[in-house]
Amino acid sequence: MINQLYDTSLSLLTDLYQLTMAYGYWKSGKAEQEAVFNLYFRKHPFQGGFTVACGLSSVMEYLEAYALSEADLRYLRSLTGSDGQPLFEEGFLEYLRNLTFRCDVEAVPEGTVVFPNEPLLRIKGPILQCQLLETPLLNLINFQSLVATKAARMRLIAKEDSLLEFGLRRAQGPDGGMTASRAAYIGGFDATSNVLAGKLYGIPVKGTHAHSWVMSFDSELEAFETYARAMPNNVTLLVDTYDSIQGVKHAIEVGRQLRARGYELGGIRLDSGDLAYLSIEARKLLDQAGFQSTSIVASNDLDEYLMASLKTQGARIGVWGIGTKLVTAFDQPALGGVYKLAAIKNPEGTWEYKLKLSEQAVKVSTPGIQQVRRFRDEGGFVADMIYDLETPPPAEATIVDPYDFTRRRSFGTSVAYEDLLVPVFRAGQKVYQLPSIHEARRRVQEQLALFHGGVKRLVNPHTYPVGLEKQLFELKTNLILSLRAQK
Amino acid sequence: MINQLYDTSLSLLTDLYQLTMAYGYWKSGKAEQEAVFNLYFRKHPFQGGFTVACGLSSVMEYLEAYALSEADLRYLRSLTGSDGQPLFEEGFLEYLRNLTFRCDVEAVPEGTVVFPNEPLLRIKGPILQCQLLETPLLNLINFQSLVATKAARMRLIAKEDSLLEFGLRRAQGPDGGMTASRAAYIGGFDATSNVLAGKLYGIPVKGTHAHSWVMSFDSELEAFETYARAMPNNVTLLVDTYDSIQGVKHAIEVGRQLRARGYELGGIRLDSGDLAYLSIEARKLLDQAGFQSTSIVASNDLDEYLMASLKTQGARIGVWGIGTKLVTAFDQPALGGVYKLAAIKNPEGTWEYKLKLSEQAVKVSTPGIQQVRRFRDEGGFVADMIYDLETPPPAEATIVDPYDFTRRRSFGTSVAYEDLLVPVFRAGQKVYQLPSIHEARRRVQEQLALFHGGVKRLVNPHTYPVGLEKQLFELKTNLILSLRAQK
Repeated sequence: MINQLYDTSLSLLTDLYQLTMAYGYWKSGKAEQEAVFNLYFRKHPFQGGFTVACGLSSVMEYLEAYALSEADLRYLRSLTGSDGQPLFEEGFLEYLRNLTFRCDVEAVPEGTVVFPNEPLLRIKGPILQCQLLETPLLNLINFQSLVATKAARMRLIAKEDSLLEFGLRRAQGPDGGMTASRAAYIGGFDATSNVLAGKLYGIPVKGTHAHSWVMSFDSELEAFETYARAMPNNVTLLVDTYDSIQGVKHAIEVGRQLRARGYELGGIRLDSGDLAYLSIEARKLLDQAGFQSTSIVASNDLDEYLMASLKTQGARIGVWGIGTKLVTAFDQPALGGVYKLAAIKNPEGTWEYKLKLSEQAVKVSTPGIQQVRRFRDEGGFVADMIYDLETPPPAEATIVDPYDFTRRRSFGTSVAYEDLLVPVFRAGQKVYQLPSIHEARRRVQEQLALFHGGVKRLVNPHTYPVGLEKQLFELKTNLILSLRAQK
Repeated sequence: MINQLYDTSLSLLTDLYQLTMAYGYWKSGKAEQEAVFNLYFRKHPFQGGFTVACGLSSVMEYLEAYALSEADLRYLRSLTGSDGQPLFEEGFLEYLRNLTFRCDVEAVPEGTVVFPNEPLLRIKGPILQCQLLETPLLNLINFQSLVATKAARMRLIAKEDSLLEFGLRRAQGPDGGMTASRAAYIGGFDATSNVLAGKLYGIPVKGTHAHSWVMSFDSELEAFETYARAMPNNVTLLVDTYDSIQGVKHAIEVGRQLRARGYELGGIRLDSGDLAYLSIEARKLLDQAGFQSTSIVASNDLDEYLMASLKTQGARIGVWGIGTKLVTAFDQPALGGVYKLAAIKNPEGTWEYKLKLSEQAVKVSTPGIQQVRRFRDEGGFVADMIYDLETPPPAEATIVDPYDFTRRRSFGTSVAYEDLLVPVFRAGQKVYQLPSIHEARRRVQEQLALFHGGVKRLVNPHTYPVGLEKQLFELKTNLILSLRAQK
């Protein structure tokens, strides 16, 4: 997806400080020191109860193509410091020229439902390489997970209704639009208006006409008739250019003409006004005229809250066209994903665990080479456990709430589980067969079905239990205490 | 910028309904009918008093490269309607294959300060072509103008301080990040952390190290010393990994070592905690130790409101690193730009003026082939007038407030003015020499300097007067009345 789109090496799509740190590691002989970083977020977006992981496809393409071009190196050579002297030595640029990606990467499959503090991706390899990749990994995963989550929230409200993504014009640049179309589909949308996303990703595309079509004719009826003549197998008529109810009546007239020619009026679209009232009135008019199967499409700055409100009001909307609020994730346009050093191998070959302190407990990172285990019973998923691969959980595992260590829970040997992170790269070689976009989309719905309804509520959702495995909790606690003592 | 980035034809980066309408125009013999569309927005973002136009560079590249590829046509051929039959006839695809862009385009230069209802771009040409371009034009201009505006607001608060854009990891995909870096620079930022934006757009790049650098060493002091040894001409030390005040003391120690070697400690960076308190304390410690010229960099979810608050609290911050809130335009992540049909040439060769009705006055579009005239006196800009080129203003022009027609204002022949829209394409040929990114950046500051301070306030800004030229106002009124009478 990423390299399919871009014509330039994206290997410099990173923050300068990743390169200056890389230089520092190289200068001080630490470049090859093995390190582990976890990519995770601290809080669900939209004050929600779950998040959908998305973006691994782009990450894989990015990593497979990772290599600095001669133009990249020329640019780096041109950078200077405060004294006007080059920022980087030639030897370092030579090192970068020969750099090939050779890390291990594990990640949760696209479409997996995830929770705060759980690694969506873990990378192990030379610290210099892990560091350079921080920014692009966050860029690719943060936004796609955000939009997939927003889409999944809308799908929960829409239930069996159709969801169309219409956001390209308000998206953040061409790739913002492409990425949003893909993530929205994975999150549960049925189709997009974005033709290029249809072409490149195989997402169904939908669309008929805009107000300008109607305005370009002398009358609305003439505009509808002309459209239906041109494309009788794709007729959804936008009825609100002048007056929505009058527009519905014109659409019915054209619907009768279509039927006489062996076609059906697919739908009418409402794009302004009181969508609850208008959809109910439009449904009556359509039904009375014998157009029970003609759908009512609604658009106009919709989001999951408005959808829920319209449904409570009895709106008769069967197809929802959603743009701005989805593709920009309007009410929270960034997922605060972070990427933290969790362990580093010392020269003796043993792992030293690392964490970042903070005055806020939620911002203290968790050390360790982490995996996530999801327990389930016959009713669905019951809890997740973050554990350290170097100190695997005992047969009867205990999880500790990281923010209230008195809350604990144990799981006997008979409890079913799956580990969420799967191997994606081994020593830089791809070892993972990426599921299709359609499989990722199915995974979201399969996963969501196994969570309790409370977790999926829009407002004040239930907090799904995610704990640290007891040994990892103790390891983290001891590390915090020893770091605080050093001050 | 756009084609520099992308490896695929972006000509299908549009909504499907643009193509189905294009098909309808073609089928009904209207494809070549000449039309005029205006691109504008209805409300300033961020409840602000001004907006900065940005994105023309991308628009020009997009239009110059506009052509459907064979792969694009194959994809369109594969699309089907509700009956499983092709959506488009072969003849139409052939028409698209031979389509070459031949519209006239006028636009305001990048960096121009603009107001609601003023066209940022006007396009005239075959209605089919104008229609296909709606989505990409909005996509390219909406987001870039939004970020440039956000950046300009931050520049107004920062005054002489340095502004660094750090947003790539939270941006909406790679291109979201690239676009944001460019627009932020035009809006008034000094540098970016995004190395690829530095390479491709010539924006200065900045950066030193992250928490992970410090964590990868046994102690903070060792981490600082190692960094300063590696790159003595680019030392800004991040002091908050464990304890910010202790971190400043370590930085001072390294500053002394640097000075002994003939270098200076460039800065320290605070990334958490009470930035007002910590920056004041850090400044004291640095000054007492003789590091008066070492700058204090602050980051951590900053925006213009927090910056203003920190300044009122006497924070001693000289460099602001801003990411998420800027590149996503967090508090309003979309500019509601629209693109409306304003006139169409009838078969007799005369212009018919068009508008879209709405129950909300602000949503009724304005007809006409519009230009914007900006009047100024010795104190700066005084008012803007939107006028129709077909009915040019008389020597003494009068503007009418479109939302209160009793408010009018006249400008005598001696009042200086400039017309904002300049020719960019004529019959599809580029006729505009795009100013450099640096010139666009200067234009923002030159323009802003000529507006009254009230317009530039963050909260409850003064509304700068923008009126319709009297004849255009009357034309619009008559057209509304006649459309409402038709219902």
